[in-house]
Amino acid sequence: MQDTLSQTFSALADPTRRAILARLRHGEASVSELAEPFLGQMTLPGVTKHLKVLEKAGLVTKGREAQWRPCTLNAEPLNDVAAWMDEYRAHMEASLDRLGEYLKTVTKTVTKTTPPSAPTTSPDSPDDHHG
Amino acid sequence: MQDTLSQTFSALADPTRRAILARLRHGEASVSELAEPFLGQMTLPGVTKHLKVLEKAGLVTKGREAQWRPCTLNAEPLNDVAAWMDEYRAHMEASLDRLGEYLKTVTKTVTKTTPPSAPTTSPDSPDDHHG
Repeated sequence: MQDTLSQTFSALADPTRRAILARLRHGEASVSELAEPFLGQMTLPGVTKHLKVLEKAGLVTKGREAQWRPCTLNAEPLNDVAAWMDEYRAHMEASLDRLGEYLKTVTKTVTKTTPPSAPTTSPDSPDDHHG
Repeated sequence: MQDTLSQTFSALADPTRRAILARLRHGEASVSELAEPFLGQMTLPGVTKHLKVLEKAGLVTKGREAQWRPCTLNAEPLNDVAAWMDEYRAHMEASLDRLGEYLKTVTKTVTKTTPPSAPTTSPDSPDDHHG
């Protein structure tokens, strides 16, 4: 049997399942509402299977009403993921620092190779053309 | 082909792989050092397989020295997980609030059902018997 944290990570390891969760962030939805955007790429039973994985992991809860059984997001398992991630905080920050240093080097190189009279718009100049 | 985020979540969905990452939090280690705690439950090739999954997901980097190829933790992919999780922050906090409310109810019930003269040690009383 899979441990709870592995089950959560496993459930999140799929773009369709993450898209379903993203939809549920905006409120509850029926199975057919959730399935609709995916029916071009997969069948309704295909989507239902993904939903079952999310339900088993406790990330989605289904209402008990006989006719309309709305699916709801349950973010509780994500708190365990966050707690697990906390132990890696220092390493994550170090890797962001390294990325920052790298980007600084790249920016310097780009600035040096771009001629000063290049007709590019400055990121500071206001853009009045909305839409 | 699996997208990057799915690959990261997939790599994290295993207790052995998470234990390997936890070991690497304390510094680099050789494959045999990493394998040692698991050799009672699995073979060296078994551990190596897990390491390959972590390397493929970019969570572990292997040194290039011919003899001693130390494995290092690379937390960069975890920053993408953190960014993904950020979108669920509000829902996660709401679920923690619900848990807090529930625990308050439980505590109240326990306090009510415990007789006042029960010979239990209060959580406030200092415990002098260390060890």
